[in-house]
Amino acid sequence: MTDTLLDPRNLAFELYEVLDAEELTQRERFADHNRETFDAAVATARQIAEKFFAPHNRKSDENEPEYVDGAAVLIPEIKPAVDAFIEAGFQNAGRSFEEGGMQLPNLLSRACFAHFQAANIATSSYPMLTMGASNLIGKFGTEDQKRRFFQPMIEGRFFGTMALTEPHAGSSLSDLRTRAEPAGDGTYRIKGNKIFISGGDHPLSENIVHMVLAKLPDAPPGVKGISLFIVPKFLVNDDGSLGERNDVVLAGLFHKMGWRGTTSTALNFGDNGNCVGYLVGEPHKGLAYMFQMMNEARIGVGMGAIMLGYAGYLYSLDYARERPQGRHPDGKDPTSPQVALIEHADIRRMLLTQKAYVEGSFDLGLFCARLVDDGKTGNTEEQRQLANELLDLLTPIVKSWPSEFCLKANELAIQILGGHGYTREYPVEQYYRDNRLNPIHEGTHGIQSLDLLARKLTQNKGAGLRQLIGLIESSIQRAGEYASLEELRKPLEQLLQHLQTTTQALLTDLGSGKLNETLANSALYMKVFGHAVIGWRWLEQAIRAEEGLARGNTSDESFYRGKLQAARYFLTWEVPACHHELNLLDARDQTCMAMQDGWF
Amino acid sequence: MTDTLLDPRNLAFELYEVLDAEELTQRERFADHNRETFDAAVATARQIAEKFFAPHNRKSDENEPEYVDGAAVLIPEIKPAVDAFIEAGFQNAGRSFEEGGMQLPNLLSRACFAHFQAANIATSSYPMLTMGASNLIGKFGTEDQKRRFFQPMIEGRFFGTMALTEPHAGSSLSDLRTRAEPAGDGTYRIKGNKIFISGGDHPLSENIVHMVLAKLPDAPPGVKGISLFIVPKFLVNDDGSLGERNDVVLAGLFHKMGWRGTTSTALNFGDNGNCVGYLVGEPHKGLAYMFQMMNEARIGVGMGAIMLGYAGYLYSLDYARERPQGRHPDGKDPTSPQVALIEHADIRRMLLTQKAYVEGSFDLGLFCARLVDDGKTGNTEEQRQLANELLDLLTPIVKSWPSEFCLKANELAIQILGGHGYTREYPVEQYYRDNRLNPIHEGTHGIQSLDLLARKLTQNKGAGLRQLIGLIESSIQRAGEYASLEELRKPLEQLLQHLQTTTQALLTDLGSGKLNETLANSALYMKVFGHAVIGWRWLEQAIRAEEGLARGNTSDESFYRGKLQAARYFLTWEVPACHHELNLLDARDQTCMAMQDGWF
Repeated sequence: MTDTLLDPRNLAFELYEVLDAEELTQRERFADHNRETFDAAVATARQIAEKFFAPHNRKSDENEPEYVDGAAVLIPEIKPAVDAFIEAGFQNAGRSFEEGGMQLPNLLSRACFAHFQAANIATSSYPMLTMGASNLIGKFGTEDQKRRFFQPMIEGRFFGTMALTEPHAGSSLSDLRTRAEPAGDGTYRIKGNKIFISGGDHPLSENIVHMVLAKLPDAPPGVKGISLFIVPKFLVNDDGSLGERNDVVLAGLFHKMGWRGTTSTALNFGDNGNCVGYLVGEPHKGLAYMFQMMNEARIGVGMGAIMLGYAGYLYSLDYARERPQGRHPDGKDPTSPQVALIEHADIRRMLLTQKAYVEGSFDLGLFCARLVDDGKTGNTEEQRQLANELLDLLTPIVKSWPSEFCLKANELAIQILGGHGYTREYPVEQYYRDNRLNPIHEGTHGIQSLDLLARKLTQNKGAGLRQLIGLIESSIQRAGEYASLEELRKPLEQLLQHLQTTTQALLTDLGSGKLNETLANSALYMKVFGHAVIGWRWLEQAIRAEEGLARGNTSDESFYRGKLQAARYFLTWEVPACHHELNLLDARDQTCMAMQDGWF
Repeated sequence: MTDTLLDPRNLAFELYEVLDAEELTQRERFADHNRETFDAAVATARQIAEKFFAPHNRKSDENEPEYVDGAAVLIPEIKPAVDAFIEAGFQNAGRSFEEGGMQLPNLLSRACFAHFQAANIATSSYPMLTMGASNLIGKFGTEDQKRRFFQPMIEGRFFGTMALTEPHAGSSLSDLRTRAEPAGDGTYRIKGNKIFISGGDHPLSENIVHMVLAKLPDAPPGVKGISLFIVPKFLVNDDGSLGERNDVVLAGLFHKMGWRGTTSTALNFGDNGNCVGYLVGEPHKGLAYMFQMMNEARIGVGMGAIMLGYAGYLYSLDYARERPQGRHPDGKDPTSPQVALIEHADIRRMLLTQKAYVEGSFDLGLFCARLVDDGKTGNTEEQRQLANELLDLLTPIVKSWPSEFCLKANELAIQILGGHGYTREYPVEQYYRDNRLNPIHEGTHGIQSLDLLARKLTQNKGAGLRQLIGLIESSIQRAGEYASLEELRKPLEQLLQHLQTTTQALLTDLGSGKLNETLANSALYMKVFGHAVIGWRWLEQAIRAEEGLARGNTSDESFYRGKLQAARYFLTWEVPACHHELNLLDARDQTCMAMQDGWF
């Protein structure tokens, strides 16, 4: 039997065979840790996720938050779940012992948090949002702001939100209209309306700390005129006690297709002219601060997409093993017993595709988490710089690729369950609905593709890109040591060569100012780039699997065989198909952009 | 402004420029019709769909049927809608004047019905199911059965269902367990359980006539031992009045992800040993009868998928035209006004992709409807035979291709609306949820692919396939008359050549008994075959568009330009990508089938 949250054997493979988590314990910050403490944290996460998060996943979908007397009312199971999460220390898994944290590497805190995302993505959002908001104050706030807001947040008494989107400005943050006027006492008065604010109201914490993007009166136009403010639901007195209710009003709730357990709110700031905000850091630097936290936030979204895909894959795998249906094409004797679904070729295709998508991106998600560690605690300045450069480049991929392909995995999970999969009596349809959000929030798919092509490729003079190419080439070379991997490394090598040629030409055109036509097919580019990255991660997993087979532990043989087969699927079925998309990019095909408005 | 159900200009293009509906009026059966009567029928359908079907589409999603005291309770808006539908004559749009019908060609009755599917797929299901059930009795029933059941069904007093699936047997109909025992008086006693029976209970009609597949005591094993029975909810007396309640019990309702307005029921037949059934036709021929009606039923499912895609496309198109957001890549001045979403290249890609999927398959759906006409009322026996052979071949495509790609269109519609698209305050997320059913019911995607590769290609000694290839070659040749279509016809020509080579090799292997390995990748084969067919239909549309442009009517120029651009998208972006999948088929790649159960 597989586990319904994630496969523990695969997690151990990632942590200890692919990503060498134990090496991290040689660093000063993680010196108190070892494989046993890592495994204990993972086991605790799993227990709490299974006991407190998974059981109400369907119930919170069927009973979404209600707007009652200006407040959001949730089902009662959510609070004990987040309380147990906080009590066990996961709100601060990565923070230092001095801050009351577990001082775990990001790799491990991501691995722990993955269990909560798989068990209940909606309930897991409340602590995730709070981590994002508290990180901003912790990094850019004053000592007073840390004392008043950050400290209660890491204690789990206050929760947080990120308040960016406005009714007329979603992707286009430069058009924000929320204003902040200096009140003369060092504070500001905020006025504006925000929508789609997740966790914008709930009864889970004493206070809610909104991180609000707004413009000061002297703000320059566009994204360089956006400042960041702390706007608490309740003011906080000097002694830390709660003061008056701030002028932040819950205007309403959005009703979503999925992810229903998380309140999605419309918030009005300053309807009565009395909404107090506190500037974080310097004026006009709000978006820059946000961007500094964005890599980790986007890994978080990507991991959410992955874990929804993972949960659906494991459920459909169990179902396919247990459900008898039909016979093989050459076994038409109707009096013979039916075979299990998994015996059918097309069911295996759908399972193997799911495995390739889910475990390929799970590997990438944890690889990026390890880059966060290397960027912060790497042994040398060079290692830290390299890690940060590579992470910057991979961030649009780790966010967008799982959002697209683990959603596709959920679609396949439904198909395996057939009519049952379409009913709410089984969990897979909810995973599909929940996962549909991921290509939209935290930067849409289109925004990610522009970030990749117009910004990340050339960041740091292309250092991240050169590093990535070097790493992929190195994997291709190492794979050459195994005759069995010859057919797997070739398609990746061919794609990498083509992708490099295409990339250089696109960058040359961008450099010469041909912005519109060069960026027109950025979504195609991101898809191919993502397939190259995931193909690389599968080749890496295949190498580790060969190493594992060479160790000759027979109890692991099936596991490694499965890894090799999934790698084969991805590298021979999916990777070669990308050349056509590169051909379109090479031709600077303008078919879509040439379609005029009036022709639709 | 576009129409929210379907684009009337495009429908006119299909009916009168592509499919030559007027030619049908030269046939005796349709001699009383002309373009005016056709257009009047379409206009009436549109009015009723807009007035009675569209307004409660969201309400019936939010208020799904409830099980109360053994019966299904629906929202009150559904009955007036189906009543208006029946009153206007659409239940019998294709039936003869003598039967009280409109005697419309299938092409026109499909076009009319498309409006109801776009407006409210769930409510449209009740009459659609009744058409399917009544057609079976009308074709294979005795005179007495027609008088008792068929007549009230076409009068709209009785509704119908198709009761095939059982808890342990979905795709594998040969494993049905429902039994029928002769009662000695010519009737039978039915005993068994059926699930996922759409429309299995509701208060919309005086009676519900279930068409039940069951096995007689002397039945041979497998699909050759299945018989078809009429099992009414209420018995019908000799004078046509309703008699006793039959022993059919509503055991429960399924709760679906979408399509919620249609009851999905579990029915128990004969719990009290007293469920009366009437044999239709000869014993053991039930599945053969079902198959004779299956082409039309599957066109109906395909059209449902298309219309959900169409509705989402048109909604997202309007939204993209009206919603300002951001600026072009080369227009970064933040004080300049925002441009409409449709100005962005990636939004145009998502709109053009939707148009290509939706209008491409809409053309195929109506082309198949016209084949139904040619099969029944073609001028010569040869024409009728050719039409039926081609329709048999295209049926798995017209069912499965829209189910996959118009679902993808709905996914793109959500993406264009961004966060709003994910909320139930906008209609596109419901289209996506509704459409997810289509790859499952009326034969899953996997079943369709086996039907195509193992059965339809070689049916009638391959006559349908030869005919299709000839038609595609003819279109490619005609396209050669237009220099502008050179780039469009080439990719189709190349795909057709490759597909023929692959097909012959696969058929040779099937002929030599290599069933399992040759059918292992049938889903890939169906995808490529479908793309070839839709590519052909787009080339045909492009030829008609060039003909239209040559007529020089300037008011139509934009419409034709849009057709040419969508054809260009599909033929140059999508069609060439299929060679990789054919390569996998050529290699008889067994990657998926070789993945052993224990390796997952």
